Amino acid sequence: MEETDSLLEFLETAIDAAKEAGEIIRKGFYQTKHVEHKGQVDLVTETDKACEDLVFNFLKERHPTHKFIGEETTAAYGTTELTDEPTWIVDPLDGTTNFVHGFPFVCISIGLTIGKIPKVGVVYNPIMDELFTSIHGKGAFLNGNPIKVSSQTELLKSLLATEVGTKRDKPTVDATTNRINSLLFKVRSLRMSGSCALNLCGIASGRLDLFYETGYGGPWDVAAGALIVTEAGGLVYDPSGKDFDITSQRVAASNPQLKDAFIEALQQAE
Amino acid sequence: MEETDSLLEFLETAIDAAKEAGEIIRKGFYQTKHVEHKGQVDLVTETDKACEDLVFNFLKERHPTHKFIGEETTAAYGTTELTDEPTWIVDPLDGTTNFVHGFPFVCISIGLTIGKIPKVGVVYNPIMDELFTSIHGKGAFLNGNPIKVSSQTELLKSLLATEVGTKRDKPTVDATTNRINSLLFKVRSLRMSGSCALNLCGIASGRLDLFYETGYGGPWDVAAGALIVTEAGGLVYDPSGKDFDITSQRVAASNPQLKDAFIEALQQAE
Repeated sequence: MEETDSLLEFLETAIDAAKEAGEIIRKGFYQTKHVEHKGQVDLVTETDKACEDLVFNFLKERHPTHKFIGEETTAAYGTTELTDEPTWIVDPLDGTTNFVHGFPFVCISIGLTIGKIPKVGVVYNPIMDELFTSIHGKGAFLNGNPIKVSSQTELLKSLLATEVGTKRDKPTVDATTNRINSLLFKVRSLRMSGSCALNLCGIASGRLDLFYETGYGGPWDVAAGALIVTEAGGLVYDPSGKDFDITSQRVAASNPQLKDAFIEALQQAE
Repeated sequence: MEETDSLLEFLETAIDAAKEAGEIIRKGFYQTKHVEHKGQVDLVTETDKACEDLVFNFLKERHPTHKFIGEETTAAYGTTELTDEPTWIVDPLDGTTNFVHGFPFVCISIGLTIGKIPKVGVVYNPIMDELFTSIHGKGAFLNGNPIKVSSQTELLKSLLATEVGTKRDKPTVDATTNRINSLLFKVRSLRMSGSCALNLCGIASGRLDLFYETGYGGPWDVAAGALIVTEAGGLVYDPSGKDFDITSQRVAASNPQLKDAFIEALQQAE
């Protein structure tokens, strides 16, 4: 079987899994308002686990030899060490704070690496019914329609996205807001949606021009989104300008034209 | 005719106008990616004006005696002084930066005051097809279903929304990021969606717990949303804790339980 045929099959698997997990997320999303607040936390945990179990079993059944790295079950079943083996990297519910609050930026993220190279990426927002898909070398799509990064060339006209993360120690918060302060003089405006994977898809679809985040959860937040960005004609890189490392919890993304200016602005913001 | 009957009729007018204007916004939204960047600015201006003209004519035809305050045409047709007369206050396109970039938080906002009291409010996001509606004393609705503010009682578990505005002088930017720095230690997380009216609807529907913004465009950004918040059981107030003044370009909103703690946090952030 040609690699392309395999990848198409893997993409189908990922889409099927994402759609089924999306049903669980959608159901929970509309329930959060009807449970006690303490129960909301349980609902997140339950939804997170139910989605990851579903995806894990789904992938295991169709591709029993593949490895699996997932936010929830890595400790139980998998390995966090990325090998050359075909490896599914899954975030069953990205945007858990949004999920609890009913803010509509939640998604499931499913990426596949082979030889450590991202080959398939699927990000599905079941609330807005937006399915982002990509196969290495074959472009990126939103609900089946090709997407591409923005054609913006000026930082000053660019829409920037970032997140404030979850750490609330003073050095981290100060660094976060100092960086934002510095960047605000150089870009048009700032958005925070609360989902790393959807921010990457925002870059891929040209809704956002610039995105950076440091200190997010792990490779599952970026494995699918990073491929979707590059397949949409964008670049994914370390905020310092070095090569992107999927295990580093540091990511920046933009179109190729904005990269150098963005890195310079990020460096001046440190 | 009873007041309720009139208000129902006015609400119908506002919904019809919002839906028609929404078509124009939706059409432009999916065009922005296909025009030159310089053309995008024209597209915003054109869409803004086409929507406001449509709404203005729509309201004028059905309710010829009513006054009109609109972001675009105030200078040409209307008055910015709010009188006791029935007055429609309209933002034809809230979230213009999002509109240009294709970020899906855009809306039209239509509010009606009688005796300076907000009586009818409609906010319509044509991209997500979300219609927020309210009549004074009759509750608030999203696509016909009743909505209410969150039941959150703890600031530390609250989701905060604000915006960075459009002014980029150093005192304004420093004040903005200092405020965010201070607040980040007291809330769960921060969202920026780029639409004041939709942030208010986010409070009304419990997706957000806390919102403040200063320096936004004018009463058209808040006339409809403020009513939708209060009709959903929330409170709208000046960030200082004083009464909300629709002409002041300063707004804060939350459920009643969070108000005192939020005002204290905002004061400490100054």
